[in-house]
Amino acid sequence: MLSTTQKILITPSVKTTTTELYIGENLLQDNLIVDLCLQSQGCIVIIVDSALKELYGYPLATALNAIVLTIPNGELAKNKDTIEYLENELFSMGCAKDTLLIAIGGGVTTDLVGFLASTYLRGVPVIFIPTTLLAMVDASIGGKTAINTCYGKNLIGSFYLPKAIIADLNTLKTLPQKQLLNGLAEILKIGLVFDNSIWQLAVTDLYNRELIVKAIQGKISIVEQDPTEKGLRRILNFGHTIGHALEKVSNYTLSHGEAVAIGSLTEAYLSMQLLYLSEKDFEAIQIAYSSFSLKLPKEYSREALFKALLYDKKKIMGKQRFVLIDRIGHALPFEGNYCKEISLEKLQTSLTWMEKIYG
Amino acid sequence: MLSTTQKILITPSVKTTTTELYIGENLLQDNLIVDLCLQSQGCIVIIVDSALKELYGYPLATALNAIVLTIPNGELAKNKDTIEYLENELFSMGCAKDTLLIAIGGGVTTDLVGFLASTYLRGVPVIFIPTTLLAMVDASIGGKTAINTCYGKNLIGSFYLPKAIIADLNTLKTLPQKQLLNGLAEILKIGLVFDNSIWQLAVTDLYNRELIVKAIQGKISIVEQDPTEKGLRRILNFGHTIGHALEKVSNYTLSHGEAVAIGSLTEAYLSMQLLYLSEKDFEAIQIAYSSFSLKLPKEYSREALFKALLYDKKKIMGKQRFVLIDRIGHALPFEGNYCKEISLEKLQTSLTWMEKIYG
Repeated sequence: MLSTTQKILITPSVKTTTTELYIGENLLQDNLIVDLCLQSQGCIVIIVDSALKELYGYPLATALNAIVLTIPNGELAKNKDTIEYLENELFSMGCAKDTLLIAIGGGVTTDLVGFLASTYLRGVPVIFIPTTLLAMVDASIGGKTAINTCYGKNLIGSFYLPKAIIADLNTLKTLPQKQLLNGLAEILKIGLVFDNSIWQLAVTDLYNRELIVKAIQGKISIVEQDPTEKGLRRILNFGHTIGHALEKVSNYTLSHGEAVAIGSLTEAYLSMQLLYLSEKDFEAIQIAYSSFSLKLPKEYSREALFKALLYDKKKIMGKQRFVLIDRIGHALPFEGNYCKEISLEKLQTSLTWMEKIYG
Repeated sequence: MLSTTQKILITPSVKTTTTELYIGENLLQDNLIVDLCLQSQGCIVIIVDSALKELYGYPLATALNAIVLTIPNGELAKNKDTIEYLENELFSMGCAKDTLLIAIGGGVTTDLVGFLASTYLRGVPVIFIPTTLLAMVDASIGGKTAINTCYGKNLIGSFYLPKAIIADLNTLKTLPQKQLLNGLAEILKIGLVFDNSIWQLAVTDLYNRELIVKAIQGKISIVEQDPTEKGLRRILNFGHTIGHALEKVSNYTLSHGEAVAIGSLTEAYLSMQLLYLSEKDFEAIQIAYSSFSLKLPKEYSREALFKALLYDKKKIMGKQRFVLIDRIGHALPFEGNYCKEISLEKLQTSLTWMEKIYG
């Protein structure tokens, strides 16, 4: 019999997981998906945004001999009730660990189905088919899954990688202009924090394949280095601290892209105010965002915004932190934190500016 | 402009995570936990089984300047409602990513709080303080988290490692005999599938520290090799295919240990029936389990059991699979699957035997 304290270290072997990302035209029409699903021995379940069920859901289900489940369109469906509805459908069909899920839709769908896949029977494989520019360049890449709660956006979630992502550029052809601007907001953001050449391309020649591929590669490069957001990956939150809070305040009537656009410009203003960003760069940024016609939501008040800011995931020790840039294409590292606590006074000044511009 | 399909592989860098496990006496009284919490900058929230709040929850909260949340005692509380209650408490206190959770209780508490920790803001650190033999040797080790659903046990969950596990052997001194037998069922199981010396120790000299440490080390050795249960780790499911189904059928009035004991002996019978296990070994196993006084739950029927078996996580292509042993201390590998599909006829015969013994 021993009587001292024993300390044992448990270090599980870690296997690298790889996601296969395909970018091209007509990918939904060719044999790619059928081939990807061939290895699957269990049920194949397509979960599709209800607005896309006729266009993509049912045709794919026929090709794959799969089951179709639909979810309501829009950010308000990204919640626990939808997850529970889907879980119960899967359980009632007897779907086991060998089930393959396929998510078809925008970021709401890939975030939600990714979360479902990560927790159903402790994890089943999932393939993402993003059908919006935003989901292609941002939401589907990097393994962040989430649902919203009444306290705010993306507050419950996981890190879980899809088996494959199929970005069929043809799906963008039927996308409304507003949805394209949504994606552009994320492309501009990655340009601002990471790659001046993406920014330059985005402000001159919108939505071409080269730009989309560059934006995706930029995001991949960041998430490969810091998959669980312990440091560098935080730069992708630029514009999102204020952006998420605005979305919440608007009860999600403001789209994610619109909110991120207002947030990006306001956080660029904050960067200038703190003397990191030059006035010249700020002006160039302001001109780029003038192509968006943006307005604060009617529910906006300074008080409501501060309440929504409470749940920002970068917060530590009860203090707000912001990602800041010092030039177009570069976020400040702040000794590996990639975000910085700022004074309430500077934040208030930036919000006053935001209210003047977008109020 | 390119026109062919591009394939990009996304391979995030993976960091090894290590859990610190401490085993000893008086660990809850010394400075160990205070030291472990020193690095934490945010809220410290203790989540404790309501039966243990006076004994362990409040004293520890005073020492750590922490908040206490309680959860109802028992398996029926391991569900979505309890998770949502805890999430809302954390949100309403403004708990951010730097929150540290501490779970005090048995396997229900560590499974549930582990799941909460894995999904709250996409993951916050958690420390487990298992206070039952079962949680010490089994539930708290290896990163499986879960909640039950109306379809069955542990059907929603994740793989998520605690930062530390503190196994204070003193907590076992106040544990009822029934709870110790619960833990013994898991110790016997690991003996059966993995280590004859654990089995020999368990059937001769119960609950000494050496046995507990050996059982923990056995489990660690398995989960380190196969953390996400793609193969070898399945052997820990021995006795659990039938066990989980019995728990479900009984509406959790049968304890996990009782269900696993009945399940282990029945799956040993199945192994003998399939001519893998010798009659001599089976008889030795049957003698060991005779120290438990076990009975099938009053809700039991063959039909109800089959319905509950539907959601076993080892199922593929709609077929039940079982872990089988060929001697005391060794589960059969079946070419890396560590479980095997068996005929309905053989299963029925084993269930008839089980009903005769425990009916």
